[in-house]
Amino acid sequence: MASVDHKNEHPIAAYGYASRDSSGHLSPFHFSRRATGETDVAFNITYCGICHSDLHYIKNEWGNATYPAVPGHEIVGIVTEVGSKVTKYKVGDRVGVGCLVQSCRSCTNCADNLESYCPRYTVTFGSNVDGTMTYGGYSNFMVCDEHFIISIPDNLPFDGTAPLLCAGISVYSPLKYYGLDKPGMHVGVVGLGGLGHMAVKFAKAMGLRVTVISTSPNKKAEAMDRLGADDFLVSGDTEQMQGAMGTMDGIIDTVSATHSIVPLLALVKTNGKVVLVGLPEKPLELPAFPVIMGRKLVGGSASGGIKETQEMMDFAAKHNITADIEVIPIDYVNTAMERLLKSDVKYRFVIDIANTLKP
Amino acid sequence: MASVDHKNEHPIAAYGYASRDSSGHLSPFHFSRRATGETDVAFNITYCGICHSDLHYIKNEWGNATYPAVPGHEIVGIVTEVGSKVTKYKVGDRVGVGCLVQSCRSCTNCADNLESYCPRYTVTFGSNVDGTMTYGGYSNFMVCDEHFIISIPDNLPFDGTAPLLCAGISVYSPLKYYGLDKPGMHVGVVGLGGLGHMAVKFAKAMGLRVTVISTSPNKKAEAMDRLGADDFLVSGDTEQMQGAMGTMDGIIDTVSATHSIVPLLALVKTNGKVVLVGLPEKPLELPAFPVIMGRKLVGGSASGGIKETQEMMDFAAKHNITADIEVIPIDYVNTAMERLLKSDVKYRFVIDIANTLKP
Repeated sequence: MASVDHKNEHPIAAYGYASRDSSGHLSPFHFSRRATGETDVAFNITYCGICHSDLHYIKNEWGNATYPAVPGHEIVGIVTEVGSKVTKYKVGDRVGVGCLVQSCRSCTNCADNLESYCPRYTVTFGSNVDGTMTYGGYSNFMVCDEHFIISIPDNLPFDGTAPLLCAGISVYSPLKYYGLDKPGMHVGVVGLGGLGHMAVKFAKAMGLRVTVISTSPNKKAEAMDRLGADDFLVSGDTEQMQGAMGTMDGIIDTVSATHSIVPLLALVKTNGKVVLVGLPEKPLELPAFPVIMGRKLVGGSASGGIKETQEMMDFAAKHNITADIEVIPIDYVNTAMERLLKSDVKYRFVIDIANTLKP
Repeated sequence: MASVDHKNEHPIAAYGYASRDSSGHLSPFHFSRRATGETDVAFNITYCGICHSDLHYIKNEWGNATYPAVPGHEIVGIVTEVGSKVTKYKVGDRVGVGCLVQSCRSCTNCADNLESYCPRYTVTFGSNVDGTMTYGGYSNFMVCDEHFIISIPDNLPFDGTAPLLCAGISVYSPLKYYGLDKPGMHVGVVGLGGLGHMAVKFAKAMGLRVTVISTSPNKKAEAMDRLGADDFLVSGDTEQMQGAMGTMDGIIDTVSATHSIVPLLALVKTNGKVVLVGLPEKPLELPAFPVIMGRKLVGGSASGGIKETQEMMDFAAKHNITADIEVIPIDYVNTAMERLLKSDVKYRFVIDIANTLKP
C-alpha cells in the first residue's frame, strides 16, 4: 500500500499532535484539511478536552485505530471562514464540535435528530471518508459542516466548556431521555470522573437530589462540598448501600471498569432506571428477578444528537455549568495521558491549543 | 408446632384441591374461608386457569411453599354475597380475581395503582395473613376485598377469560408501560406459551405488526394462521435472525428457561426495548456495547395493577380477546400439570370448577 502524503492530500495545511502506533505516544504532525465547502464552517481551535476514548483510540485498545491518529472531540474555537450556503454562523463566532462531524442525514435516526445513533455517522477522528481519515482537535484548526457545529454562548469560558461537547452531553442526554430530569427526583451517579462530575452538575441544575456512589470514601468531601451532591455512598459499605435501597428514581453509571450492577438495581425504586454510559468490555450480569418484580430497567445511552447538544449547551449557559478542568500545554499531553490512566485529574484535562500548539 | 385445623380456622366451609408436599400432587382438600366482610365480595368460582407459577409453587421450586397449598390465580365466577360497604358489585355479577387479593393500600405504589409492586401485597395463594394462609382458585368459592375484584364484561365467556387475569395482564401491562402500543409499531414476541399467545393477540388488537420468535419451526403455522402474527422467526436460524436485525421497536420475552438476550438486542432498533416477563433463574448476560450504542434497554414487568387489569379486561371485551384454552375437569389436574411441564397445551388449561369440583 502506498504511504499517504498527509501534508498534501487536502489543500489546506494543518498541524497537530498524532500517535503513530499503539504506544499511543503523541508527537507533532503536519497534515492537511479540506477547503471550506459551501455548507462548511472553518474555525481556529482554542481548546480541546481530553476524553478517555482519545486514550483508548491512540493505543488501539478498541482494535480500530488507523495511524497517524490525531485524537480530540471536545473542540472549541473561533470561526475564521464560512461557506457560501452557511446560514447559522459567521466569522468571529464562538463554536464547538463534539464527537460527530457528519452523518447520513437521511435515515430515521438523522430525521429524529439522533445523529449519534445514525448507522453511518462520521466521527471526529478515525473515520474514513472517501479514503481519507478524519482528524480531531489536538490540532490548530477544524473544518466541519455547519449542521454539526455547536454555538457557544458568550458567558461560557472556552476552556471549561470544551468538555461539555462529549462528557457533558453524554450525561445530559440520558437524564433527559430516561425522564430523570424532573425536579425533586433522586438520582444516583456512579463514578466521579469526567462524566460523573458533569452528571452531578447537570442533575443539580435540573433540581434533582443527587447521591454519588463511589468505591473511594475519600471522594466524599469533593462530591458534596465541591460539586454539591446531596449524599455520598461508598459502594463497598454494605450498611450504607442497604440503607439507601429503593430510594432512587434512577442511576447514571459512568464506570467502564468491570463491576456489578446488582447493587445498583437494589438502590432504585419500582420503575427505577439504571443507565449505563461507561462502556464495560465484559458483559454485565443481569438478574431477571429484581428487574421483573420491580419493573426496573437497565438501559444505555451514547452521546446526544446535534439539536440536543445545542440544548445542553444553552442549559449550561443558563445555569453557569462548565467542567472542572486542568488546563495543560500541548507538550504536556503524554504526561496527561499517563495521569488520566491513573484517574489523576479533577476532572478533565483541557489542552490550551491557541497558546501552546505552534508549528 | 400444633397442626392447623383447616376446616375450622375460618367460619365458612370451603373445598378444593391442594398439594400436601413438594411432590406437587393435588388431591381433594376441605378447608374454610372468612365470612364476607364489609368491603368483601364473595363469589362461586366457575373456572380457574392453570398458570405455570401454580406448578412452581406446589412443587416448592421457589422454596417458599406452605402446605397444604391450593393454587390458582386466574379465577372467575358469579357473586353470591357482598359486604355492607361494597359499592361496585352486587349478587349475580360476573367477576374475577387475579394474582392479588390485598395490598398495603398506603404506599406510593398503591397510590399509583401499582398494587402489583406494593412491597406488602397479599398474593392469591401462599400468603400468610395474620397467621392463616391464602388459598387460590382450585376451589369452590372465593372471598376478596372489592378493590381486588375485576368486573367481567358480559360478552366475554368465563372459560377463555380466566387466563386474562394473569397471562393477559402480564403482557398487556408491559406493552402499555414501555410504550409498545402505538399502531404501526413492530413488536417481537419470544416464546409461544400462555403469555406469548396472549401477547400476540393483544399486540395485534393494538394495531401492531407482530413477529413471533421461537426455537421450534413447527410453531410457524399456528403463530401466523391461528393467532394472526405477521411474521415468524426461528431463533436458531442465523440468516432469518440477521435479516430481521434492527427492525423491531420492542420485544416481549416470555421465556423463563435460560436463554441469551444478545440476539434479541440485535433485533430491536435504536431506542428498542427488550422486556422480560418470563423469569429465568440464572442471571442473563447483558453486553453493554449494543445497549449503549443503540440506546436500547432491557426492562422487566411483573403483573399489572388493579385499575390496569380492569382496563385490560375492557380492552379484551372490545376486541373479543380471550385465551386459547383446553378446558379440563378438576380430576384431570395432575395430568394437566404433567403436560404443562412438557408445554403440551394450546395454550392454557382452564379447570371447569362449577361442573366438576364436588365435595
